[in-house]
Amino acid sequence: MNKGITDFPARLSSIAAETEKTLNQLLGEVPIAGEIARPPRLVTAMRYAALDGGKRLRPFLLVETAAVCGVARAGALMAGAALELVHCYSLIHDDLPAMDDDDLRRGRPTVHKAFDEATAILVGDALLTLAFDVMSRDEVHTDPKIRVALISELARAAGLGGMAGGQMLDLAAEGRFDSKRALTEKEIATLQAMKTGALIRFACRAGAILGQADKVEFAGIDRYGAAIGQAFQIADDLLDVEGDAKTLGKAAGKDAAAGKATLVAALGIDGARARLKELVAEADAALAPFGTKSDILRVAARFVAERKT
Amino acid sequence: MNKGITDFPARLSSIAAETEKTLNQLLGEVPIAGEIARPPRLVTAMRYAALDGGKRLRPFLLVETAAVCGVARAGALMAGAALELVHCYSLIHDDLPAMDDDDLRRGRPTVHKAFDEATAILVGDALLTLAFDVMSRDEVHTDPKIRVALISELARAAGLGGMAGGQMLDLAAEGRFDSKRALTEKEIATLQAMKTGALIRFACRAGAILGQADKVEFAGIDRYGAAIGQAFQIADDLLDVEGDAKTLGKAAGKDAAAGKATLVAALGIDGARARLKELVAEADAALAPFGTKSDILRVAARFVAERKT
Repeated sequence: MNKGITDFPARLSSIAAETEKTLNQLLGEVPIAGEIARPPRLVTAMRYAALDGGKRLRPFLLVETAAVCGVARAGALMAGAALELVHCYSLIHDDLPAMDDDDLRRGRPTVHKAFDEATAILVGDALLTLAFDVMSRDEVHTDPKIRVALISELARAAGLGGMAGGQMLDLAAEGRFDSKRALTEKEIATLQAMKTGALIRFACRAGAILGQADKVEFAGIDRYGAAIGQAFQIADDLLDVEGDAKTLGKAAGKDAAAGKATLVAALGIDGARARLKELVAEADAALAPFGTKSDILRVAARFVAERKT
Repeated sequence: MNKGITDFPARLSSIAAETEKTLNQLLGEVPIAGEIARPPRLVTAMRYAALDGGKRLRPFLLVETAAVCGVARAGALMAGAALELVHCYSLIHDDLPAMDDDDLRRGRPTVHKAFDEATAILVGDALLTLAFDVMSRDEVHTDPKIRVALISELARAAGLGGMAGGQMLDLAAEGRFDSKRALTEKEIATLQAMKTGALIRFACRAGAILGQADKVEFAGIDRYGAAIGQAFQIADDLLDVEGDAKTLGKAAGKDAAAGKATLVAALGIDGARARLKELVAEADAALAPFGTKSDILRVAARFVAERKT
């Protein structure tokens, strides 16, 4: 077992702390070049939404994948912060009364509860927009070609053919627009690859883009990202079945109550656990081109699959 | 009077038609590289929201400013389509029940009325995201440095220090979060520069960025964009006072009913008309570095100030 493995919790929390610091700087009150003014209420609500929150798993994956590809930390952290802004926006909009109608997120009132619905909509819009501003900055990478590639991939991962489209499929699967019908396993996999998989996969691909990985390395990272994206969602669905609200910081049992399409419902708990094991093995194998220097990503895959919150 | 002047309505509708064609292609049903699937309901609602609509004033300004700066049409049209996607998203989110609660837009039911609130939120999110995808494409400009500059400026014009922030100030001015108080003329100007001015100004700056205009030209275009941004909003406020719902395709008299902060309320109708004249003159003067080849933009300024819909 190498140092990367025993170090995992420290490295996760270190990147979370650095991401927090970056987000804190990005969400300052003073307008930057090209801006006219930053309305205090919007800044306050954006800070409430984006700071003090979460494991920062996506920035972690981006920074560590980039490190495996030989990229210095500063640029990867900035790209990771941009990605985290997209993740935060998606949580806020998904929590809205018209969407999943959640009152609690990370143990605190959701943005529309702590503020109001109009503010929550604008906070999401402004976080998403800021993400593209941040990704365009030369702190991410000095080569604009790399930044443009990141922006393009991020937009496609987050947009109608990725995360936003996945949320639409999720609402449809609840029977929101038509009569409800059970999704096939394949349909559930597509829904989840879009709704949560796409951003996690992007996190990994972004590290490889920053590192200008060769074809074989890029394919390995991509396969790794796809596997842990799936593992993340299955683990999440298992937690919803087995967890409690106190540990999760959000309502538990909501998926079953809403009759949501999950692979746990389709495969059963044991089947889902077996699938998780396969995905961890696949993530492991995908990292072969990198050898032991990618062990931190191997531990991350197990962490994602076995996490309790 | 040169050809550009007599040609104005034809040129406006020609760019609108080309923008429509571009948007139609961008909003196809088939997923593109990097996307997983495009949910039919989301595509349908995005097409409803973005197609068959409006004068396409922002793409017009972008394409014509670019032309004045010597840029070929194809790239400017693609950049204009990206900008129009941002404009469309903002209309959909502003119309939401939690925001301005409008039932009618361009003479048709708003997206949340024709579909539902969750779909409308997602449509806005996905259009905004697609805008950055489109702006990152090499069809916009072969030099990624130019595309990154456009993305950065667009994000800042649209985000917390621009359009989204302006909407927040507008809601606050209605007394949504605190007790209502009359805004000063300066506060109204800031609000409007953010809410509507920033995207119009960006349209013009984007043309100059694409054309790699020199410092003097860039400053002229920027001043022009700022002036017509203001003129646009004052004309809009005058229409709200003087227009009727049938011509406008949306509710009239809403600003007064909501007690919205407008310069028409602050300056009176005659004062507002006088200010419009000054702004047209300023736009005219700002174009001095370009001489008569910018006459189309001069006519556009008058059109913006005098429009009846």
